[in-house]
Amino acid sequence: MKILFLFILLNTSLVFSQLNDSVFIRTIYNEALSRGKSHEDLRELCKDIGARLSGSSEAEMAIQWSKSKMESYGFDKVYLQEIKVPHWERGTKESGWIKTKQGEILKVNLLALGGSVGTDGLLEAEIIEFKHLDDLKKVDPLLVKGKIVFLNQPMDEKQIATFKAYGGCYPIRGDGAVEASKLGAVAVIIRSLGLPIDIHPHTGSMHYNDSVKKIPAAALSTLDANHLSEILSINKAFFVFEMDCRSFPDAVSYNVIGEITGSVKSNEIITFGGHLDSWDTGEGAHDDGAGVIHCLEAIRILKVMKYKPKHTLRVVFFMNEENGNMGGKTYATWSKEKGEIQIAAIESDRGGFSPKGFELDGTDEQLKLLQSFEKNFSPYELSVFEKGYGGVDIGPLNKVFIGIPLFGFVPDSQRYFDFHHAPSDVFESVNKRELELGCAAIGSLIYLLDINL
Amino acid sequence: MKILFLFILLNTSLVFSQLNDSVFIRTIYNEALSRGKSHEDLRELCKDIGARLSGSSEAEMAIQWSKSKMESYGFDKVYLQEIKVPHWERGTKESGWIKTKQGEILKVNLLALGGSVGTDGLLEAEIIEFKHLDDLKKVDPLLVKGKIVFLNQPMDEKQIATFKAYGGCYPIRGDGAVEASKLGAVAVIIRSLGLPIDIHPHTGSMHYNDSVKKIPAAALSTLDANHLSEILSINKAFFVFEMDCRSFPDAVSYNVIGEITGSVKSNEIITFGGHLDSWDTGEGAHDDGAGVIHCLEAIRILKVMKYKPKHTLRVVFFMNEENGNMGGKTYATWSKEKGEIQIAAIESDRGGFSPKGFELDGTDEQLKLLQSFEKNFSPYELSVFEKGYGGVDIGPLNKVFIGIPLFGFVPDSQRYFDFHHAPSDVFESVNKRELELGCAAIGSLIYLLDINL
Repeated sequence: MKILFLFILLNTSLVFSQLNDSVFIRTIYNEALSRGKSHEDLRELCKDIGARLSGSSEAEMAIQWSKSKMESYGFDKVYLQEIKVPHWERGTKESGWIKTKQGEILKVNLLALGGSVGTDGLLEAEIIEFKHLDDLKKVDPLLVKGKIVFLNQPMDEKQIATFKAYGGCYPIRGDGAVEASKLGAVAVIIRSLGLPIDIHPHTGSMHYNDSVKKIPAAALSTLDANHLSEILSINKAFFVFEMDCRSFPDAVSYNVIGEITGSVKSNEIITFGGHLDSWDTGEGAHDDGAGVIHCLEAIRILKVMKYKPKHTLRVVFFMNEENGNMGGKTYATWSKEKGEIQIAAIESDRGGFSPKGFELDGTDEQLKLLQSFEKNFSPYELSVFEKGYGGVDIGPLNKVFIGIPLFGFVPDSQRYFDFHHAPSDVFESVNKRELELGCAAIGSLIYLLDINL
Repeated sequence: MKILFLFILLNTSLVFSQLNDSVFIRTIYNEALSRGKSHEDLRELCKDIGARLSGSSEAEMAIQWSKSKMESYGFDKVYLQEIKVPHWERGTKESGWIKTKQGEILKVNLLALGGSVGTDGLLEAEIIEFKHLDDLKKVDPLLVKGKIVFLNQPMDEKQIATFKAYGGCYPIRGDGAVEASKLGAVAVIIRSLGLPIDIHPHTGSMHYNDSVKKIPAAALSTLDANHLSEILSINKAFFVFEMDCRSFPDAVSYNVIGEITGSVKSNEIITFGGHLDSWDTGEGAHDDGAGVIHCLEAIRILKVMKYKPKHTLRVVFFMNEENGNMGGKTYATWSKEKGEIQIAAIESDRGGFSPKGFELDGTDEQLKLLQSFEKNFSPYELSVFEKGYGGVDIGPLNKVFIGIPLFGFVPDSQRYFDFHHAPSDVFESVNKRELELGCAAIGSLIYLLDINL
């Protein structure tokens, strides 16, 4: 009898708490959709600041803008965390042409890959095509020596998970220059890692290796890559290009951090964020303006709701995700050294599209917790609650906080590689309502983690 | 022992058939994503034809284009089905202004509602605002007599299911003119049924009632509606507008039909389609160019795969969904009179966005069948398999084929009311990959229904 009574009590309280959760989450969504600041904040970041590559003046302005914005929202603490970042600049010269055997000269759309050396004036050589990096690795060096290597591997449009298709092509961008240089090539031109066939080249990170010569590396638009490939299927061709991009000594930069102090366990932190830096083309709207704004809006809404978290809620605008991840690495070490306990981290770095759910980089038990939230999210049409990837910026956390669950926000991925690292990644490519729904989903997850951990 | 053996056999054949389904569906997706015709077909429909309101020359051209296109894909039968449709034209004059008490004159963006009478020259009167149709119904007629009624109910942006938010506002467009006229108003101006605050007015159907005077009806852009409301919150204002839209006698038009004849039960039909007509603004890209192209591409892919269906697969490009549904009504009656058996119908009329799944207007048993397909669709990230709505065009089928399951294709709905019935519903607003994924999802459902029914 006593036991039954206790059971009824517990059960009632469970129902009551679920009802509270449901009302609380509904209120988060209402604020995001009716009185949200996310779209206007993203407009300011994209239009008043613009693209913001680590070490650039725009990145510095973005840091100032972010700090002011966080202060205007009245968080308990707002501060900068100093880091060292690489400093590379595209320069002012960036042009390329195909020269056919018949003497035709065809201008192409290209972008230097991030970190590439320049060409030191016009560079001209015969261009030779490979579909895969593996094909290049197998070839006789005599065939490549003195030429420009063209790596023309298209993203596999049949992959439903577009990030997998991207991952499949990553080696041509990341490793192409080293592999081509090993064989004596004078430069490497890759097909942009983008899904549509269009005029926009997509830049991104690449690396060199001290044991081989650093050669210039650039990405062609998919349309130009197809065109060049057609030309090469008929005859030999030359490629001419000039780029005066170059690297400078490392620069001082900052992560931007805002907090609501925990009311019970202020030393236990829930970290959530995206990266403030972007590539230097377009406006970094989806990558990752949307991600930082998602997280800023999430904590702003909790603040507006006068929510008193148990744990400290901390939004981090990480700097330098795109070419070094110094923000993420520095943050993890700093937090550990301060004696903090990081109990969960969330990253949004897959664009501002319609939310599908969350992936977890964590244990089976943590997955059970995430999946127990599915009922809270089903009215909002979220259905992905599974193991997967957290994010680049929060990745270093689980090296120093063993066992911390890392959550990656999962929006629909179908349009992401239309814009990723391309001039087309501008404010107008982000839909207001899709952005707002992402903010609310992340705010709701922060709340659910805070009350359940 | 015998029983066990039989069980193993059955089980093996089950696994084998699931494997076949999985390979078959993968092949449908590969064709749609790698060699698909949907994007180019939609471009032709939107750019070479354009908007195509029932009874217009553009609708006639769209019928010719559709028939030629189906013939070019080599279906077993392609034919037209004659129907009668209303014929209304927007005319050439369509302008409106707010006149403030202070004498300011402010141009607005407006569109006549479909079927509205014209203004017979400039119409000017004081304008009076109501937030809901119910508020208008309750008001003293003396307050409204001789004035222009402004129905300014915003779509509820807090609704996650945007079609519900649309449904909530539908009465101001559908019934506004009748209710305002009952009280002696001289015209009705509604806030557009659109979610963003922007410059695009959204047209759509409305009706009159023979017992009250037909008064002109138009939709203001949401931006102008907000502006007008602000002005009216301070002082009285006048509204001036001119529209020379008018109705003509009913016109002859056609549904366009293409078939692959069933190899076993050719008299049993699986019907799938969308509507070829659109409103006369924009290009009818999402509404419902995407829907007809989804279904055309689905059957094209099955044809290319040399699939021999058990039942007859029939794609129907319905005419006149927007203002009368004569295509849907005529088709259902015609099929019944021919002695056909309609065993299932699918409609795509919710835009060309990323697929989420299918809704069923049908029985619990039919829902079980639909939900048994969930495993086939999970690699393609579809997660909605529930009861709901089929579509306007296929709706009449279950009046004459009692018990037929009606399936509505469900894409993500978040962006739909940015474009619906507005000048912004153009080809460029449809994402190629999202469109292709919809074609593959519908093709796969047709296949699964054909082998399971």
